[in-house]
Amino acid sequence: MELITDPAELQNSLDQMRADGKSIGLVPTMGFLHRGHLSLIKRAVAENDVVITTIFVNPLQFAANEDLSTYPRDIEKDSSLCLEAGTTKLFTPANEEMFCDTVLTSISVTVLSSVLEGITRPTHFSGVATVVSKLFNIVGPCRSYFGEKDWQQLQIIKKMVTDLSYRVEVIGCPIIRDDDGLALSSRNVYLSDDEREVAAIIPQALHYAHGKVKSGERQSQLLKDSIIEQLQKSSLVSIDYVEVVNGDSLEPVTTVDAQTRILVAVRVGSARLIDNINALVGINTA
Amino acid sequence: MELITDPAELQNSLDQMRADGKSIGLVPTMGFLHRGHLSLIKRAVAENDVVITTIFVNPLQFAANEDLSTYPRDIEKDSSLCLEAGTTKLFTPANEEMFCDTVLTSISVTVLSSVLEGITRPTHFSGVATVVSKLFNIVGPCRSYFGEKDWQQLQIIKKMVTDLSYRVEVIGCPIIRDDDGLALSSRNVYLSDDEREVAAIIPQALHYAHGKVKSGERQSQLLKDSIIEQLQKSSLVSIDYVEVVNGDSLEPVTTVDAQTRILVAVRVGSARLIDNINALVGINTA
Repeated sequence: MELITDPAELQNSLDQMRADGKSIGLVPTMGFLHRGHLSLIKRAVAENDVVITTIFVNPLQFAANEDLSTYPRDIEKDSSLCLEAGTTKLFTPANEEMFCDTVLTSISVTVLSSVLEGITRPTHFSGVATVVSKLFNIVGPCRSYFGEKDWQQLQIIKKMVTDLSYRVEVIGCPIIRDDDGLALSSRNVYLSDDEREVAAIIPQALHYAHGKVKSGERQSQLLKDSIIEQLQKSSLVSIDYVEVVNGDSLEPVTTVDAQTRILVAVRVGSARLIDNINALVGINTA
Repeated sequence: MELITDPAELQNSLDQMRADGKSIGLVPTMGFLHRGHLSLIKRAVAENDVVITTIFVNPLQFAANEDLSTYPRDIEKDSSLCLEAGTTKLFTPANEEMFCDTVLTSISVTVLSSVLEGITRPTHFSGVATVVSKLFNIVGPCRSYFGEKDWQQLQIIKKMVTDLSYRVEVIGCPIIRDDDGLALSSRNVYLSDDEREVAAIIPQALHYAHGKVKSGERQSQLLKDSIIEQLQKSSLVSIDYVEVVNGDSLEPVTTVDAQTRILVAVRVGSARLIDNINALVGINTA
Protein backbone atom coordinates (compact mmCIF):
# COMPACT_ATOMS: atom_id res chain seq x y z
CA MET A 1 0.00 0.00 0.00
CA GLU A 2 1.30 3.38 -1.03
CA LEU A 3 0.82 6.44 1.20
CA ILE A 4 0.23 9.71 -0.68
CA THR A 5 -0.42 13.20 0.67
CA ASP A 6 0.00 15.32 -2.47
CA PRO A 7 -3.11 15.56 -4.72
CA ALA A 8 -1.03 16.10 -7.88
CA GLU A 9 1.10 13.04 -7.12
CA LEU A 10 -2.05 10.95 -6.67
CA GLN A 11 -3.52 12.23 -9.95
CA ASN A 12 -0.34 11.46 -11.85
CA SER A 13 0.09 8.03 -10.32
CA LEU A 14 -3.48 7.11 -11.30
CA ASP A 15 -3.11 8.30 -14.90
CA GLN A 16 -0.96 5.33 -15.82
CA MET A 17 -3.32 2.86 -14.12
CA ARG A 18 -6.26 4.37 -15.98
CA ALA A 19 -4.35 4.22 -19.27
CA ASP A 20 -3.73 0.53 -18.54
CA GLY A 21 -7.51 0.07 -18.34
CA LYS A 22 -7.61 -0.54 -14.59
CA SER A 23 -10.85 0.25 -12.77
CA ILE A 24 -10.54 2.60 -9.81
CA GLY A 25 -12.65 2.44 -6.64
CA LEU A 26 -12.75 5.35 -4.18
CA VAL A 27 -13.60 5.18 -0.48
CA PRO A 28 -13.69 8.72 0.96
CA THR A 29 -13.50 8.78 4.78
CA MET A 30 -12.65 11.09 7.65
CA GLY A 31 -10.55 8.38 9.27
CA PHE A 32 -10.78 6.82 12.76
CA LEU A 33 -11.85 3.78 10.84
CA HIS A 34 -14.25 1.13 12.14
CA ARG A 35 -15.77 -2.01 10.62
CA GLY A 36 -18.24 0.18 8.72
CA HIS A 37 -15.44 1.84 6.76
CA LEU A 38 -13.67 -1.49 6.31
CA SER A 39 -16.80 -2.98 4.75
CA LEU A 40 -16.67 -0.18 2.14
CA ILE A 41 -12.99 -0.80 1.40
CA LYS A 42 -13.52 -4.56 1.11
CA ARG A 43 -16.44 -4.07 -1.27
CA ALA A 44 -14.32 -1.66 -3.32
CA VAL A 45 -11.49 -4.22 -3.41
CA ALA A 46 -13.90 -6.88 -4.66
CA GLU A 47 -15.23 -4.65 -7.45
CA ASN A 48 -12.18 -2.68 -8.68
CA ASP A 49 -8.57 -3.23 -9.77
CA VAL A 50 -7.30 -0.32 -7.69
CA VAL A 51 -8.73 1.04 -4.43
CA ILE A 52 -8.03 4.55 -3.16
CA THR A 53 -9.00 5.17 0.45
CA THR A 54 -8.91 8.81 1.48
CA ILE A 55 -8.65 10.12 5.03
CA PHE A 56 -9.38 13.80 5.25
CA VAL A 57 -11.20 15.51 8.12
CA ASN A 58 -12.93 17.99 5.85
CA PRO A 59 -13.11 21.42 7.48
CA LEU A 60 -15.76 22.60 4.99
CA GLN A 61 -18.39 20.29 6.47
CA PHE A 62 -18.01 21.44 10.08
CA ALA A 63 -19.79 24.55 11.35
CA ALA A 64 -17.92 26.82 13.77
CA ASN A 65 -19.73 25.30 16.78
CA GLU A 66 -19.02 21.70 15.74
CA ASP A 67 -16.31 19.18 16.64
CA LEU A 68 -13.67 19.76 13.96
CA SER A 69 -10.79 20.19 16.41
CA THR A 70 -11.80 17.25 18.62
CA TYR A 71 -12.87 14.87 15.83
CA PRO A 72 -11.10 11.59 16.69
CA ARG A 73 -7.94 10.78 14.71
CA ASP A 74 -5.60 7.76 14.70
CA ILE A 75 -3.70 7.70 11.43
CA GLU A 76 -1.35 4.89 12.44
CA LYS A 77 -4.12 2.46 13.29
CA ASP A 78 -6.07 3.63 10.22
CA SER A 79 -3.06 2.89 8.01
CA SER A 80 -2.73 -0.67 9.16
CA LEU A 81 -6.49 -1.24 8.85
CA CYS A 82 -6.45 0.14 5.29
CA LEU A 83 -3.56 -2.12 4.37
CA GLU A 84 -5.31 -5.18 5.84
CA ALA A 85 -8.55 -4.37 4.02
CA GLY A 86 -6.74 -4.20 0.68
CA THR A 87 -6.34 -0.48 -0.05
CA THR A 88 -3.97 0.15 -2.97
CA LYS A 89 -3.19 3.79 -2.19
CA LEU A 90 -4.03 5.65 1.01
CA PHE A 91 -4.50 9.37 0.39
CA THR A 92 -4.10 11.57 3.49
CA PRO A 93 -3.66 15.16 2.36
CA ALA A 94 -3.05 17.96 4.84
CA ASN A 95 -5.46 20.89 4.76
CA GLU A 96 -2.97 23.07 2.94
CA GLU A 97 -2.42 20.36 0.32
CA MET A 98 -6.16 20.15 -0.41
CA PHE A 99 -6.72 23.91 -0.27
CA CYS A 100 -3.59 25.88 -1.12
CA ASP A 101 -5.66 29.00 -1.67
CA THR A 102 -8.80 30.46 -0.08
CA VAL A 103 -11.68 28.30 -1.31
CA LEU A 104 -14.41 30.39 -2.93
CA THR A 105 -16.21 27.57 -4.73
CA SER A 106 -19.01 25.57 -3.17
CA ILE A 107 -21.52 23.05 -4.42
CA SER A 108 -24.99 22.94 -3.01
CA VAL A 109 -27.80 20.49 -3.61
CA THR A 110 -30.96 22.35 -2.61
CA VAL A 111 -34.05 20.71 -1.12
CA LEU A 112 -32.19 17.52 -0.15
CA SER A 113 -29.68 19.52 1.93
CA SER A 114 -32.10 21.63 3.94
CA VAL A 115 -34.20 18.87 5.54
CA LEU A 116 -33.35 16.41 8.36
CA GLU A 117 -29.66 16.98 9.22
CA GLY A 118 -29.77 20.22 7.22
CA ILE A 119 -32.05 21.85 9.77
CA THR A 120 -29.41 21.85 12.51
CA ARG A 121 -26.43 21.70 10.11
CA PRO A 122 -27.36 24.16 7.30
CA THR A 123 -23.87 24.34 5.74
CA HIS A 124 -22.86 20.72 6.33
CA PHE A 125 -23.86 19.09 3.05
CA SER A 126 -22.46 21.86 0.90
CA GLY A 127 -19.11 21.16 2.59
CA VAL A 128 -19.53 17.45 1.92
CA ALA A 129 -20.56 17.89 -1.73
CA THR A 130 -17.72 20.31 -2.44
CA VAL A 131 -15.04 18.01 -1.06
CA VAL A 132 -16.49 14.85 -2.57
CA SER A 133 -16.59 16.59 -5.95
CA LYS A 134 -12.93 17.59 -5.50
CA LEU A 135 -12.01 14.00 -4.59
CA PHE A 136 -13.87 12.76 -7.68
CA ASN A 137 -11.82 15.19 -9.79
CA ILE A 138 -8.54 14.17 -8.17
CA VAL A 139 -9.13 10.41 -8.29
CA GLY A 140 -11.45 9.99 -11.30
CA PRO A 141 -13.00 6.82 -9.86
CA CYS A 142 -15.30 4.40 -11.68
CA ARG A 143 -17.10 3.66 -8.41
CA SER A 144 -17.27 5.42 -5.06
CA TYR A 145 -18.49 3.86 -1.82
CA PHE A 146 -20.51 5.49 0.97
CA GLY A 147 -22.17 4.02 4.06
CA GLU A 148 -25.96 4.05 4.33
CA LYS A 149 -25.66 5.34 7.89
CA ASP A 150 -25.32 8.79 6.33
CA TRP A 151 -28.42 8.14 4.23
CA GLN A 152 -29.09 11.80 3.45
CA GLN A 153 -25.47 12.35 2.41
CA LEU A 154 -25.72 9.36 0.10
CA GLN A 155 -28.83 10.75 -1.65
CA ILE A 156 -27.21 14.18 -1.98
CA ILE A 157 -24.07 12.75 -3.57
CA LYS A 158 -26.14 10.62 -5.95
CA LYS A 159 -28.12 13.70 -7.00
CA MET A 160 -24.94 15.77 -7.45
CA VAL A 161 -23.47 13.03 -9.64
CA THR A 162 -26.60 12.97 -11.84
CA ASP A 163 -26.98 16.75 -12.07
CA LEU A 164 -23.31 17.38 -12.89
CA SER A 165 -22.87 14.25 -15.07
CA TYR A 166 -20.01 12.86 -12.99
CA ARG A 167 -18.95 9.53 -14.46
CA VAL A 168 -18.87 7.60 -11.24
CA GLU A 169 -21.19 4.94 -9.87
CA VAL A 170 -22.17 5.88 -6.32
CA ILE A 171 -22.60 2.75 -4.24
CA GLY A 172 -24.35 2.79 -0.87
CA CYS A 173 -23.33 0.03 1.54
CA PRO A 174 -25.34 -1.36 4.47
CA ILE A 175 -24.91 0.04 7.98
CA ILE A 176 -22.53 -2.03 10.11
CA ARG A 177 -23.67 -2.41 13.73
CA ASP A 178 -22.28 -3.43 17.09
CA ASP A 179 -23.62 -6.57 18.77
CA ASP A 180 -26.37 -4.60 20.51
CA GLY A 181 -27.40 -3.00 17.22
CA LEU A 182 -25.82 0.46 17.60
CA ALA A 183 -24.68 1.73 14.20
CA LEU A 184 -20.90 2.06 14.12
CA SER A 185 -19.70 5.66 14.01
CA SER A 186 -16.38 7.35 14.71
CA ARG A 187 -18.33 9.64 17.03
CA ASN A 188 -19.41 6.72 19.28
CA VAL A 189 -16.07 7.29 21.03
CA TYR A 190 -17.62 10.40 22.58
CA LEU A 191 -20.01 8.19 24.61
CA SER A 192 -19.34 7.39 28.28
CA ASP A 193 -19.91 3.75 29.31
CA ASP A 194 -23.40 4.57 30.58
CA GLU A 195 -24.27 6.54 27.47
CA ARG A 196 -22.92 3.79 25.24
CA GLU A 197 -25.18 1.27 26.97
CA VAL A 198 -28.21 3.51 26.61
CA ALA A 199 -27.50 4.29 22.94
CA ALA A 200 -28.67 0.82 21.92
CA ILE A 201 -32.16 2.20 22.43
CA ILE A 202 -31.85 3.85 18.98
CA PRO A 203 -31.71 0.67 16.87
CA GLN A 204 -34.16 -0.95 19.30
CA ALA A 205 -36.69 1.81 18.66
CA LEU A 206 -36.23 1.45 14.89
CA HIS A 207 -36.56 -2.33 15.20
CA TYR A 208 -39.71 -1.89 17.26
CA ALA A 209 -41.25 0.33 14.55
CA HIS A 210 -40.26 -2.17 11.88
CA GLY A 211 -42.05 -4.85 13.93
CA LYS A 212 -45.21 -2.77 13.69
CA VAL A 213 -44.77 -2.45 9.93
CA LYS A 214 -44.34 -6.23 9.70
CA SER A 215 -47.62 -6.61 11.59
CA GLY A 216 -49.35 -4.46 8.99
CA GLU A 217 -49.03 -0.88 10.29
CA ARG A 218 -48.59 1.59 7.40
CA GLN A 219 -49.34 4.97 9.00
CA SER A 220 -46.14 7.02 9.26
CA GLN A 221 -47.41 9.14 12.14
CA LEU A 222 -48.09 6.09 14.29
CA LEU A 223 -44.61 4.73 13.57
CA LYS A 224 -43.02 8.08 14.44
CA ASP A 225 -45.00 8.22 17.67
CA SER A 226 -43.95 4.72 18.63
CA ILE A 227 -40.26 5.48 18.01
CA ILE A 228 -40.45 8.70 20.00
CA GLU A 229 -42.16 6.82 22.85
CA GLN A 230 -39.38 4.21 22.86
CA LEU A 231 -36.58 6.79 22.79
CA GLN A 232 -38.16 8.81 25.57
CA LYS A 233 -37.78 5.81 27.91
CA SER A 234 -34.22 6.99 28.59
CA SER A 235 -33.59 10.38 30.19
CA LEU A 236 -30.08 10.39 28.64
CA VAL A 237 -31.54 10.55 25.13
CA SER A 238 -32.68 13.84 23.64
CA ILE A 239 -34.47 13.53 20.30
CA ASP A 240 -33.45 15.80 17.43
CA TYR A 241 -35.80 14.31 14.82
CA VAL A 242 -37.66 11.17 13.86
CA GLU A 243 -38.86 11.29 10.26
CA VAL A 244 -40.57 8.90 7.86
CA VAL A 245 -39.67 9.87 4.30
CA ASN A 246 -39.28 8.70 0.74
CA GLY A 247 -35.73 7.31 0.63
CA ASP A 248 -34.79 9.12 -2.59
CA SER A 249 -36.56 12.48 -2.37
CA LEU A 250 -36.39 12.67 1.46
CA GLU A 251 -39.95 14.06 1.39
CA PRO A 252 -42.19 13.01 4.31
CA VAL A 253 -44.69 10.28 3.46
CA THR A 254 -47.94 9.55 5.26
CA THR A 255 -48.05 5.88 4.29
CA VAL A 256 -45.24 3.35 4.26
CA ASP A 257 -44.18 1.67 1.00
CA ALA A 258 -41.06 -0.11 -0.29
CA GLN A 259 -39.13 3.19 -0.67
CA THR A 260 -39.89 4.43 2.84
CA ARG A 261 -36.95 5.25 5.08
CA ILE A 262 -37.19 6.04 8.77
CA LEU A 263 -34.42 8.36 9.97
CA VAL A 264 -33.60 9.42 13.51
CA ALA A 265 -31.11 11.80 15.09
CA VAL A 266 -30.64 12.01 18.84
CA ARG A 267 -28.20 13.43 21.31
CA VAL A 268 -26.75 11.14 23.95
CA GLY A 269 -24.44 13.12 26.20
CA SER A 270 -22.15 15.16 23.98
CA ALA A 271 -22.59 12.82 21.00
CA ARG A 272 -25.08 13.40 18.20
CA LEU A 273 -26.01 10.02 16.74
CA ILE A 274 -27.97 9.18 13.60
CA ASP A 275 -29.47 5.95 12.32
CA ASN A 276 -31.99 4.83 9.71
CA ILE A 277 -33.79 1.81 8.29
CA ASN A 278 -35.90 0.90 5.34
CA ALA A 279 -39.32 0.63 7.00
CA LEU A 280 -40.22 -2.66 5.30
CA VAL A 281 -36.78 -4.30 5.58
CA GLY A 282 -35.83 -3.25 9.10
CA ILE A 283 -32.39 -3.51 10.69
CA ASN A 284 -29.94 -5.27 8.42
CA THR A 285 -28.23 -8.12 10.19
CA ALA A 286 -25.01 -7.91 8.14
CA MET B 1 -17.38 16.43 -38.19
CA GLU B 2 -19.75 14.37 -36.10
CA LEU B 3 -22.95 15.88 -34.70
CA ILE B 4 -23.94 14.57 -31.26
CA THR B 5 -26.89 15.53 -29.06
CA ASP B 6 -26.80 12.78 -26.42
CA PRO B 7 -24.35 13.38 -23.51
CA ALA B 8 -23.86 9.64 -22.89
CA GLU B 9 -23.06 9.06 -26.56
CA LEU B 10 -20.48 11.85 -26.45
CA GLN B 11 -18.90 10.44 -23.26
CA ASN B 12 -18.65 6.97 -24.75
CA SER B 13 -17.26 8.16 -28.07
CA LEU B 14 -14.54 10.12 -26.24
CA ASP B 15 -13.51 7.18 -24.03
CA GLN B 16 -11.83 5.41 -26.92
CA MET B 17 -10.03 8.56 -28.04
CA ARG B 18 -8.77 9.15 -24.51
CA ALA B 19 -7.63 5.52 -24.23
CA ASP B 20 -5.71 6.07 -27.47
CA GLY B 21 -3.86 8.93 -25.77
CA LYS B 22 -5.52 11.68 -27.79
CA SER B 23 -5.71 15.15 -26.21
CA ILE B 24 -9.18 16.70 -26.08
CA GLY B 25 -9.93 20.42 -26.38
CA LEU B 26 -13.33 21.83 -25.40
CA VAL B 27 -14.92 25.04 -26.69
CA PRO B 28 -18.19 25.67 -24.82
CA THR B 29 -20.46 28.19 -26.59
CA MET B 30 -24.10 29.29 -26.71
CA GLY B 31 -23.98 29.28 -30.51
CA PHE B 32 -24.73 32.08 -33.02
CA LEU B 33 -21.04 31.88 -33.69
CA HIS B 34 -18.89 34.81 -34.75
CA ARG B 35 -15.17 35.22 -35.38
CA GLY B 36 -14.57 35.35 -31.63
CA HIS B 37 -15.85 31.80 -31.20
CA LEU B 38 -13.99 30.67 -34.32
CA SER B 39 -10.71 31.97 -32.90
CA LEU B 40 -11.27 29.71 -29.87
CA ILE B 41 -12.01 26.68 -32.05
CA LYS B 42 -8.96 27.33 -34.24
CA ARG B 43 -6.71 27.65 -31.21
CA ALA B 44 -8.17 24.41 -29.80
CA VAL B 45 -7.52 22.70 -33.15
CA ALA B 46 -3.91 23.86 -33.08
CA GLU B 47 -3.35 22.57 -29.54
CA ASN B 48 -5.36 19.30 -29.34
CA ASP B 49 -5.91 16.08 -31.27
CA VAL B 50 -9.69 16.26 -30.88
CA VAL B 51 -11.87 19.38 -30.57
CA ILE B 52 -15.35 19.33 -29.09
CA THR B 53 -17.41 22.46 -29.70
CA THR B 54 -20.61 22.64 -27.69
CA ILE B 55 -23.64 24.77 -28.49
CA PHE B 56 -26.06 24.98 -25.60
CA VAL B 57 -28.08 28.04 -24.66
CA ASN B 58 -27.82 27.37 -20.97
CA PRO B 59 -31.09 28.20 -19.20
CA LEU B 60 -29.38 28.18 -15.78
CA GLN B 61 -27.45 31.35 -16.55
CA PHE B 62 -30.45 33.47 -17.57
CA ALA B 63 -32.60 35.21 -14.96
CA ALA B 64 -36.37 35.30 -15.51
CA ASN B 65 -36.21 38.86 -16.89
CA GLU B 66 -33.39 38.10 -19.33
CA ASP B 67 -33.28 37.13 -23.01
CA LEU B 68 -33.31 33.30 -22.91
CA SER B 69 -36.24 32.95 -25.32
CA THR B 70 -34.97 35.58 -27.77
CA TYR B 71 -31.26 34.69 -27.59
CA PRO B 72 -30.18 34.45 -31.26
CA ARG B 73 -29.85 30.95 -32.72
CA ASP B 74 -28.72 29.66 -36.13
CA ILE B 75 -27.65 26.06 -35.81
CA GLU B 76 -27.25 25.46 -39.55
CA LYS B 77 -24.82 28.31 -40.06
CA ASP B 78 -23.07 27.39 -36.77
CA SER B 79 -22.60 23.81 -38.01
CA SER B 80 -20.88 24.83 -41.18
CA LEU B 81 -18.68 27.35 -39.32
CA CYS B 82 -17.67 24.67 -36.81
CA LEU B 83 -16.81 22.26 -39.60
CA GLU B 84 -14.73 24.89 -41.41
CA ALA B 85 -12.88 25.82 -38.22
CA GLY B 86 -11.89 22.19 -37.63
CA THR B 87 -14.28 20.95 -34.92
CA THR B 88 -14.11 17.15 -34.53
CA LYS B 89 -17.45 16.69 -32.78
CA LEU B 90 -20.21 19.27 -32.42
CA PHE B 91 -22.29 18.70 -29.28
CA THR B 92 -25.75 20.31 -29.37
CA PRO B 93 -27.83 18.75 -26.61
CA ALA B 94 -31.47 19.69 -26.11
CA ASN B 95 -32.46 20.97 -22.67
CA GLU B 96 -34.05 17.67 -21.74
CA GLU B 97 -30.90 15.80 -22.78
CA MET B 98 -28.73 17.95 -20.50
CA PHE B 99 -31.22 17.96 -17.62
CA CYS B 100 -33.45 14.90 -17.64
CA ASP B 101 -34.47 15.58 -14.05
CA THR B 102 -35.05 18.72 -11.97
CA VAL B 103 -31.61 20.17 -11.30
CA LEU B 104 -31.00 20.70 -7.58
CA THR B 105 -27.22 21.08 -7.75
CA SER B 106 -25.49 24.40 -8.26
CA ILE B 107 -21.92 25.61 -8.05
CA SER B 108 -21.14 29.06 -6.80
CA VAL B 109 -17.88 30.94 -6.65
CA THR B 110 -18.39 33.63 -4.03
CA VAL B 111 -16.75 37.06 -4.07
CA LEU B 112 -15.84 36.83 -7.78
CA SER B 113 -19.51 36.26 -8.72
CA SER B 114 -21.08 39.09 -6.78
CA VAL B 115 -19.13 42.05 -8.21
CA LEU B 116 -19.36 43.73 -11.66
CA GLU B 117 -21.83 41.64 -13.72
CA GLY B 118 -22.93 39.92 -10.53
CA ILE B 119 -24.55 43.10 -9.22
CA THR B 120 -27.21 43.15 -11.93
CA ARG B 121 -27.04 39.40 -12.64
CA PRO B 122 -26.77 37.78 -9.18
CA THR B 123 -27.55 34.20 -10.32
CA HIS B 124 -25.75 34.36 -13.66
CA PHE B 125 -22.33 32.98 -12.78
CA SER B 126 -23.68 30.14 -10.70
CA GLY B 127 -25.57 29.03 -13.81
CA VAL B 128 -22.39 29.34 -15.88
CA ALA B 129 -20.21 27.47 -13.37
CA THR B 130 -22.74 24.66 -12.97
CA VAL B 131 -23.05 24.02 -16.69
CA VAL B 132 -19.33 24.40 -17.40
CA SER B 133 -18.62 21.88 -14.64
CA LYS B 134 -21.15 19.51 -16.21
CA LEU B 135 -19.52 19.94 -19.62
CA PHE B 136 -16.11 19.25 -18.07
CA ASN B 137 -17.52 16.02 -16.60
CA ILE B 138 -19.11 14.97 -19.88
CA VAL B 139 -16.14 15.78 -22.11
CA GLY B 140 -13.15 15.37 -19.76
CA PRO B 141 -11.05 17.88 -21.73
CA CYS B 142 -7.33 18.53 -21.31
CA ARG B 143 -7.87 22.17 -22.26
CA SER B 144 -10.92 24.40 -22.42
CA TYR B 145 -11.12 27.73 -24.26
CA PHE B 146 -12.98 30.89 -23.23
CA GLY B 147 -12.98 34.39 -24.67
CA GLU B 148 -11.52 37.26 -22.66
CA LYS B 149 -14.56 39.37 -23.51
CA ASP B 150 -16.26 37.60 -20.60
CA TRP B 151 -13.30 38.39 -18.37
CA GLN B 152 -15.16 37.88 -15.11
CA GLN B 153 -16.51 34.52 -16.30
CA LEU B 154 -12.98 33.46 -17.22
CA GLN B 155 -11.66 34.26 -13.72
CA ILE B 156 -14.59 32.45 -12.09
CA ILE B 157 -14.03 29.31 -14.16
CA LYS B 158 -10.30 29.38 -13.42
CA LYS B 159 -11.03 29.66 -9.70
CA MET B 160 -13.60 26.84 -9.84
CA VAL B 161 -11.07 24.62 -11.60
CA THR B 162 -8.44 25.31 -8.91
CA ASP B 163 -10.82 24.94 -5.96
CA LEU B 164 -12.38 21.70 -7.23
CA SER B 165 -9.13 20.27 -8.70
CA TYR B 166 -10.55 19.88 -12.19
CA ARG B 167 -7.82 18.52 -14.46
CA VAL B 168 -8.30 20.95 -17.27
CA GLU B 169 -6.22 23.86 -18.41
CA VAL B 170 -8.45 26.93 -18.79
CA ILE B 171 -7.22 29.08 -21.65
CA GLY B 172 -8.41 32.65 -22.14
CA CYS B 173 -8.24 33.98 -25.69
CA PRO B 174 -8.03 37.62 -26.83
CA ILE B 175 -11.17 39.57 -27.66
CA ILE B 176 -11.93 39.64 -31.38
CA ARG B 177 -13.20 43.02 -32.61
CA ASP B 178 -14.98 44.51 -35.60
CA ASP B 179 -13.12 47.03 -37.78
CA ASP B 180 -14.33 49.92 -35.62
CA GLY B 181 -13.15 48.15 -32.46
CA LEU B 182 -16.49 46.87 -31.13
CA ALA B 183 -15.96 43.53 -29.37
CA LEU B 184 -17.77 40.77 -31.24
CA SER B 185 -20.78 39.40 -29.36
CA SER B 186 -23.79 37.33 -30.36
CA ARG B 187 -25.87 40.03 -28.71
CA ASN B 188 -24.61 42.73 -31.12
CA VAL B 189 -27.43 41.53 -33.39
CA TYR B 190 -29.85 43.32 -31.03
CA LEU B 191 -28.41 46.69 -32.12
CA SER B 192 -30.17 48.87 -34.70
CA ASP B 193 -27.94 50.45 -37.35
CA ASP B 194 -27.74 53.70 -35.38
CA GLU B 195 -27.00 51.89 -32.15
CA ARG B 196 -24.37 49.75 -33.82
CA GLU B 197 -22.60 52.84 -35.07
CA VAL B 198 -22.70 54.45 -31.64
CA ALA B 199 -21.48 51.27 -29.88
CA ALA B 200 -17.95 51.85 -31.18
CA ILE B 201 -17.72 54.49 -28.47
CA ILE B 202 -17.09 51.65 -25.97
CA PRO B 203 -13.70 50.50 -27.33
CA GLN B 204 -12.88 54.12 -28.15
CA ALA B 205 -13.37 55.11 -24.51
CA LEU B 206 -11.19 52.21 -23.36
CA HIS B 207 -8.56 53.12 -25.94
CA TYR B 208 -8.67 56.73 -24.77
CA ALA B 209 -8.06 55.65 -21.17
CA HIS B 210 -5.20 53.40 -22.26
CA GLY B 211 -3.70 56.43 -24.03
CA LYS B 212 -3.70 58.23 -20.70
CA VAL B 213 -1.98 55.24 -19.06
CA LYS B 214 0.62 55.26 -21.82
CA SER B 215 1.25 58.93 -21.08
CA GLY B 216 1.93 58.06 -17.45
CA GLU B 217 -1.44 58.32 -15.71
CA ARG B 218 -1.76 55.68 -12.95
CA GLN B 219 -4.73 56.89 -10.89
CA SER B 220 -7.71 54.56 -11.39
CA GLN B 221 -10.28 57.20 -10.48
CA LEU B 222 -9.03 59.57 -13.18
CA LEU B 223 -9.15 56.78 -15.76
CA LYS B 224 -12.71 55.85 -14.70
CA ASP B 225 -13.78 59.47 -14.92
CA SER B 226 -12.29 59.86 -18.38
CA ILE B 227 -14.06 56.72 -19.65
CA ILE B 228 -17.37 57.85 -18.19
CA GLU B 229 -16.92 61.25 -19.79
CA GLN B 230 -16.26 59.65 -23.19
CA LEU B 231 -19.25 57.28 -22.94
CA GLN B 232 -21.58 60.10 -21.90
CA LYS B 233 -20.95 61.82 -25.22
CA SER B 234 -23.67 59.64 -26.72
CA SER B 235 -27.24 59.88 -25.42
CA LEU B 236 -27.89 56.33 -26.69
CA VAL B 237 -25.40 54.88 -24.20
CA SER B 238 -26.39 54.23 -20.61
CA ILE B 239 -23.52 53.20 -18.32
CA ASP B 240 -23.96 50.20 -16.04
CA TYR B 241 -20.44 50.24 -14.61
CA VAL B 242 -16.86 51.27 -15.32
CA GLU B 243 -14.41 49.58 -12.96
CA VAL B 244 -10.63 49.42 -12.60
CA VAL B 245 -9.71 46.17 -10.85
CA ASN B 246 -7.05 43.55 -10.30
CA GLY B 247 -7.55 41.15 -13.21
CA ASP B 248 -7.42 38.00 -11.05
CA SER B 249 -9.17 38.99 -7.81
CA LEU B 250 -11.50 41.54 -9.49
CA GLU B 251 -10.92 43.82 -6.50
CA PRO B 252 -10.86 47.56 -7.24
CA VAL B 253 -7.37 49.08 -7.36
CA THR B 254 -6.47 52.71 -6.85
CA THR B 255 -3.27 52.57 -8.89
CA VAL B 256 -2.68 50.90 -12.23
CA ASP B 257 -0.13 48.08 -12.55
CA ALA B 258 0.52 45.20 -14.97
CA GLN B 259 -2.44 43.17 -13.60
CA THR B 260 -4.95 45.98 -13.86
CA ARG B 261 -8.05 45.39 -15.95
CA ILE B 262 -10.59 48.04 -16.89
CA LEU B 263 -14.09 46.62 -17.36
CA VAL B 264 -17.17 48.38 -18.67
CA ALA B 265 -20.81 47.42 -19.11
CA VAL B 266 -23.26 49.67 -20.90
CA ARG B 267 -26.71 49.50 -22.38
CA VAL B 268 -27.22 50.61 -25.97
CA GLY B 269 -30.87 50.31 -26.89
CA SER B 270 -32.04 46.87 -25.78
CA ALA B 271 -28.53 45.40 -25.83
CA ARG B 272 -26.30 45.14 -22.79
CA LEU B 273 -22.68 45.21 -23.97
CA ILE B 274 -19.47 44.50 -22.06
CA ASP B 275 -15.84 45.08 -22.89
CA ASN B 276 -12.49 45.17 -21.10
CA ILE B 277 -8.79 45.84 -21.57
CA ASN B 278 -5.57 45.38 -19.69
CA ALA B 279 -4.86 48.97 -18.69
CA LEU B 280 -1.19 48.82 -19.72
CA VAL B 281 -1.67 46.79 -22.92
CA GLY B 282 -4.80 48.45 -24.28
CA ILE B 283 -6.98 47.19 -27.12
CA ASN B 284 -5.50 44.11 -28.75
CA THR B 285 -5.26 44.50 -32.48
CA ALA B 286 -5.65 40.78 -33.25
